[in-house]
Amino acid sequence: MKDFIYYAPTEVVFGKESEEQVARLVKKYGGHKVLVHYGGQSAIKSGLLDKMCNLLDEAGIEYVKLGGVVPNPRLSKIYEGIDLCRKEGVDFILAVGGGSVIDSAKGIAYGVPYEGDVWDFYLGKDEAQTCLPLACVLTIPAAGSEMSEASVVTNEDGDVKLGYSNDISRPKFAIMNPCRTFTLPPYQTAAGVTDMIMHTMERYFTHDDDMILTTELAEAVMRTMMDSVFAVLKNPEDYRHRAQIMWGGSVAHNGLTGCGVADDWATHQLEHELSGMFDVTHGAGLAAVWPSWARYVYKENVSRFVRFAVNVLGVPNDFSDPEGTALKGIEAMERFYHAIGMPINIHELIGRDITDEEIKEMVRKCSRDYKATQGCFKVLHAEDMEAIYKMAK
Amino acid sequence: MKDFIYYAPTEVVFGKESEEQVARLVKKYGGHKVLVHYGGQSAIKSGLLDKMCNLLDEAGIEYVKLGGVVPNPRLSKIYEGIDLCRKEGVDFILAVGGGSVIDSAKGIAYGVPYEGDVWDFYLGKDEAQTCLPLACVLTIPAAGSEMSEASVVTNEDGDVKLGYSNDISRPKFAIMNPCRTFTLPPYQTAAGVTDMIMHTMERYFTHDDDMILTTELAEAVMRTMMDSVFAVLKNPEDYRHRAQIMWGGSVAHNGLTGCGVADDWATHQLEHELSGMFDVTHGAGLAAVWPSWARYVYKENVSRFVRFAVNVLGVPNDFSDPEGTALKGIEAMERFYHAIGMPINIHELIGRDITDEEIKEMVRKCSRDYKATQGCFKVLHAEDMEAIYKMAK
Repeated sequence: MKDFIYYAPTEVVFGKESEEQVARLVKKYGGHKVLVHYGGQSAIKSGLLDKMCNLLDEAGIEYVKLGGVVPNPRLSKIYEGIDLCRKEGVDFILAVGGGSVIDSAKGIAYGVPYEGDVWDFYLGKDEAQTCLPLACVLTIPAAGSEMSEASVVTNEDGDVKLGYSNDISRPKFAIMNPCRTFTLPPYQTAAGVTDMIMHTMERYFTHDDDMILTTELAEAVMRTMMDSVFAVLKNPEDYRHRAQIMWGGSVAHNGLTGCGVADDWATHQLEHELSGMFDVTHGAGLAAVWPSWARYVYKENVSRFVRFAVNVLGVPNDFSDPEGTALKGIEAMERFYHAIGMPINIHELIGRDITDEEIKEMVRKCSRDYKATQGCFKVLHAEDMEAIYKMAK
Repeated sequence: MKDFIYYAPTEVVFGKESEEQVARLVKKYGGHKVLVHYGGQSAIKSGLLDKMCNLLDEAGIEYVKLGGVVPNPRLSKIYEGIDLCRKEGVDFILAVGGGSVIDSAKGIAYGVPYEGDVWDFYLGKDEAQTCLPLACVLTIPAAGSEMSEASVVTNEDGDVKLGYSNDISRPKFAIMNPCRTFTLPPYQTAAGVTDMIMHTMERYFTHDDDMILTTELAEAVMRTMMDSVFAVLKNPEDYRHRAQIMWGGSVAHNGLTGCGVADDWATHQLEHELSGMFDVTHGAGLAAVWPSWARYVYKENVSRFVRFAVNVLGVPNDFSDPEGTALKGIEAMERFYHAIGMPINIHELIGRDITDEEIKEMVRKCSRDYKATQGCFKVLHAEDMEAIYKMAK
């Protein structure tokens, strides 16, 4: 078992009446002049943006608005936000939206007090020492960014998608009203659940399998998400199951399911190149890659894959054939992906065959020009990445 | 499902190398002059107290020491600590010990900046607006005070034991080294595990059984604790299972297992009178009371007790007889208590019959002179409390 730090200071305010508390919370965490940051039309059409602005108005809190964040948030929008915050004297950022908006807010929060180029943090050239306080009103459960220290940004100049993690960017509070997720389309709902389950799977497939409590908690999260997604695909306004998914997305990525274990993240890295190149939905990209990753690596720790098959997917344990049980678990996961409308390979993801040249380009980027490895359950070199992409064709 | 707030900002630093970080953490959270607060001889004999003081010395952090905290911590020690902190200009409290030491530290932290009597908070006469920052080096996993907002103090003047909860008292950091728990005697180990499981049971037995994820997480915590306690009673230096218990004690009481549900706490309240009157170990007192509470209330929500029996204790589900399954779960819990050396009634707890006068006195205190009720799974009036104490004789 590894030593660990667990630190998830975000105040989660959850439920039907949670939005009403936004002004009190902004004040509690020291906001005087707020950047209200959001994405496209949905926050406007639903009335959420107006509601937040009205509540800030009523409380006498000044704000400026910046919308237009797109999925796989762009560096150019972050630059725009930094300029605006500096010009307007903003001291607090309120992200209203999903993971992309929150990640964009984190980028802006790092950049405002920083003299250099904020992209340096994502390139690993510097560490952020301070950032503006930020918080969020979550509308899309998936990325887990509402409690996490992580953000992922795409630099359009070269289609490079990179992540940066720093505890100082953890949101001060996160307002979560499951009713706001009733209007999420089925594909986005399913992709979100795929993403949150994967956040736990990236930590679950580990060699540190002496950490019993973390394993038990992870399985509880995965089972609950897999059960609840069918309920909300059937009835989008099922509050009970929307609530499981919304809270599950946070628990899956706030660090709890990783305490004492080495996390892997190879599937995420392999997917980042897919969504960087094809601009596909992140969760769908994960589903397209994971089965091939799993078949490529499962022999590194067969018993872990057996446990996953039995405890998470309900596969009967054939004690005489652990490898067979492990493989049945991967097949059951593929059936789950298909049942919720997710792809299980790249062809299903992008609607055509991927070319060898495209795979080569993704391998080059994922291996940082053949210099870097990914993952630790099995350490993936460039040739491993190529093999997995080819299996996933 | 209830709306909820989840807020657990404590930075947990967990593992074999965690103690080395104490000075860095005190500085990170703004400490310049520290009160090192501790209990009896064990922190001295183990060398932990000296180690902490040496690390503070090396980092140039000033400190004063105050020991002598006893189980069921006393108000008089808190007054002593408040005086010392004021005299010495202390701005940070470091509790080195278990729940009693941390609870005593919380009392001192509330009291130092407060002009009135700190006992007013526990009496419900006032709310603390501010307190000194505090942190802990945990040596006894049980109370969960290392991440919680709660503290319980005994006023010797009248033998009154009262709790007070306020988010501002949550420890800034908690250092947890499972090796420090190797020397815990079996009785204290078992009582600690009983206490931590009960922290989750107090939230598990609820009418809000639509909160699936919380239920699943709670069951994961309880199963893991019940499994690990046998391993450490057999081999006290089993790091793996000591670690499950240490981390489990925090997860059981940091709010995670109560998200979205109404918590009960009647068993805790009934026990507080027992340990107030007989100065018994809190965890043992809980085990002595719970089976009688359970038999008195289980009909309020039989299916919850069935789920507990099946998912936590492994009782086969007799679908034709839910009440029978529920009762078998309570019996299985009694066998668990006995197997780890805990009592299941008051006679086993105090070694003699309790008198009717003693029960009357406990009922009077627990009902605050017949004016208050306890719990919500079934609301307990004075006559219910008396009935449960008599069942538990």
